[in-house]
Amino acid sequence: MVNVQSIPSPTTHTEERAHEADHPSSLLALFGPDQPLHLDCGIDLAPFQIAYKTYGELNAERSNAILICHALTLDQHVANVHPLTGKLGWWETMVGPGRPLDPGRYFIICANVIGGCMGSTGPASTNPATGRLWGLDFPVITIPDMVRAQAMLLDRLGIDTLFCIVGGSMGGMQALQWTAAYPKRVFSVLAVACSTRHSAQNIAFHELGRQAVMADPDWRGGGYFEHGTHPHRGLGVARMAAHITYLSDAALHRKFGRRMQDRELPTFSFDADFQVESYLRYQGSSFVERFDANSYLYLTRAMDYFDIAADHKGVLAEAFRGIQTRVCVVSFTSDWLFPTSEARAIVHALNASSARVSFAEIETDRGHDAFLLDVPEFFDIARAFLESAGSARGLAKAGG
Amino acid sequence: MVNVQSIPSPTTHTEERAHEADHPSSLLALFGPDQPLHLDCGIDLAPFQIAYKTYGELNAERSNAILICHALTLDQHVANVHPLTGKLGWWETMVGPGRPLDPGRYFIICANVIGGCMGSTGPASTNPATGRLWGLDFPVITIPDMVRAQAMLLDRLGIDTLFCIVGGSMGGMQALQWTAAYPKRVFSVLAVACSTRHSAQNIAFHELGRQAVMADPDWRGGGYFEHGTHPHRGLGVARMAAHITYLSDAALHRKFGRRMQDRELPTFSFDADFQVESYLRYQGSSFVERFDANSYLYLTRAMDYFDIAADHKGVLAEAFRGIQTRVCVVSFTSDWLFPTSEARAIVHALNASSARVSFAEIETDRGHDAFLLDVPEFFDIARAFLESAGSARGLAKAGG
Repeated sequence: MVNVQSIPSPTTHTEERAHEADHPSSLLALFGPDQPLHLDCGIDLAPFQIAYKTYGELNAERSNAILICHALTLDQHVANVHPLTGKLGWWETMVGPGRPLDPGRYFIICANVIGGCMGSTGPASTNPATGRLWGLDFPVITIPDMVRAQAMLLDRLGIDTLFCIVGGSMGGMQALQWTAAYPKRVFSVLAVACSTRHSAQNIAFHELGRQAVMADPDWRGGGYFEHGTHPHRGLGVARMAAHITYLSDAALHRKFGRRMQDRELPTFSFDADFQVESYLRYQGSSFVERFDANSYLYLTRAMDYFDIAADHKGVLAEAFRGIQTRVCVVSFTSDWLFPTSEARAIVHALNASSARVSFAEIETDRGHDAFLLDVPEFFDIARAFLESAGSARGLAKAGG
Repeated sequence: MVNVQSIPSPTTHTEERAHEADHPSSLLALFGPDQPLHLDCGIDLAPFQIAYKTYGELNAERSNAILICHALTLDQHVANVHPLTGKLGWWETMVGPGRPLDPGRYFIICANVIGGCMGSTGPASTNPATGRLWGLDFPVITIPDMVRAQAMLLDRLGIDTLFCIVGGSMGGMQALQWTAAYPKRVFSVLAVACSTRHSAQNIAFHELGRQAVMADPDWRGGGYFEHGTHPHRGLGVARMAAHITYLSDAALHRKFGRRMQDRELPTFSFDADFQVESYLRYQGSSFVERFDANSYLYLTRAMDYFDIAADHKGVLAEAFRGIQTRVCVVSFTSDWLFPTSEARAIVHALNASSARVSFAEIETDRGHDAFLLDVPEFFDIARAFLESAGSARGLAKAGG
């Protein structure tokens, strides 16, 4: 009998995850029945809540606020230990003293997106109308919905204009949506490894992930929480697929090549003979410890629906007409999920709208994930862009 | 409640598939206990059988035989209606009267690979020692094992030297393995969209597919056939993942873009809103009608293990030292599964061995699948290569 090894059943922190979805380890803004979130699908969501973290202090002029928009499976825990995983914040390289986003200079906000599972209302939250989890009763949300909720949070915080919005991947989509929807509230934007619409290939990968989740009988038609199950196998497979797209072929080759795992010869089995196999299995099984399966369905769907130009008769430049926002677009040479061609399309549209746009394509073999990694050239560009925008905004210089 | 649509349960031809695995609708070569197949894992497989199709006639000199090696999920039904699907043969564009591989001139052979599920011995076959299906008791096989079995078939057919071996993808791997293992038995080789080793990214995609299959509870640890189940959901997801890699981003964009399926507005659901979603679901559900899940595990594993250079101290050129075989290597510009860089590595190694090698990179946006599609430039190259090799071999010219 040939040996078989598959994704291990995780020691899922089911209770901790459920608790975090309703009672996040972060700040919370509650919006009552009189303050509904108008969703693109036509539904008014109320009440709802937004979980968020802040770093630094808002200055007297209220001019130093930076909103970080997080990517698909990340959250508001940008620069602090994660309440579920105990790991460092996902953007400690970018946010911190002496880092490009220095809390000593800026008031930095990051909110869990609507539809997420870390404290903002989503399918993993309790629906107050029923006392049960939302699950698939939660309405399908979009990137514009996420941004609309963030705008309501800023109103609540008394912030009219953001100094900058920074986001990569799905976070970059939100940053671009902010620019199109609320140009006067956004002084500058740093949009990284993203696009204004999801490509057919990207939709295909997301659909693959969703089908993997839905194929897991433990998903129970989305009602797993009522059955005490969790579709960890399906969600693990979805994560493996996504993870491949976050890395480049070259990065995988450099990291793993065809190297074997703790052995020199093949086992002639279905064990994880190759290092890349164990790595992927680890990515799959660690993800399910911290993320809700339904939330993954909703957020991938939101990205798939995203298409800024579609709301402007297919002309992207129209979405940005007349904006004064300073935009810096960054792409990475080996990112095949959001390749440089997508970044160029954004830049062309912004140029056609006479916006102030700069663009940098950074040479790296690290793929889409480069925006989360220690890529000094990226930090230099972020720093320079913020410095220049800060001067125009009348913010004190670094060290000043 | 948000609408959900997932891969439908197929009307699996379980019985037809099971019958085909033991009693193929094609020719059959049986090898008894005294003629074992020596496998790389150290096991001698006996008895075993090879299912194959032939087209055309072997000439008196036995010099016009062409072996086609099939890709991962294909089979011996190259140019005839498929016994399970009722569809045309998978390479009717290449094989037929007036086509590059013309049965009027050549004796064309294609054998189902060892480990396959269309009549050659594999996990879906009955193990004569137990009277039950092999399942995971089947030994893990390799590309060299497949080739060794084909060599035994040629011995049986009384063919010492092949005029040509033609193969794309996993078929190209076999063609290259033939060249390295039996150079004197191979007059010429047309190796298309392939490589001499599977890359880390390709292993990653295969591992993803295997995990999808193994995550399906209906897989039953590989023993689904004994439980009357079939892991169609897991295998469907695996197929979706693989299918994305067979197409290019450009091809997906051209075929589907962000076009909606039978509608103009999003449904705000998990229905297949986008055409690319329905297409992938169709690919997933039609595949499970014709393919065995365990066989998919074994064949992907064989591709992952493949690394010709590894058997020659890491020096690929050593594998081809002194060969007289004429080799034509073909790649497609938009193939990201077996990119042109892999083809160049083959060509460099062959040049270093003073082999007769020609190389063509064909411009197309159709991705890896291009080798199966109607790409006239590819057919022209195949025709010219065979013509030239045929002259050297003393075969009559076309129309002669």
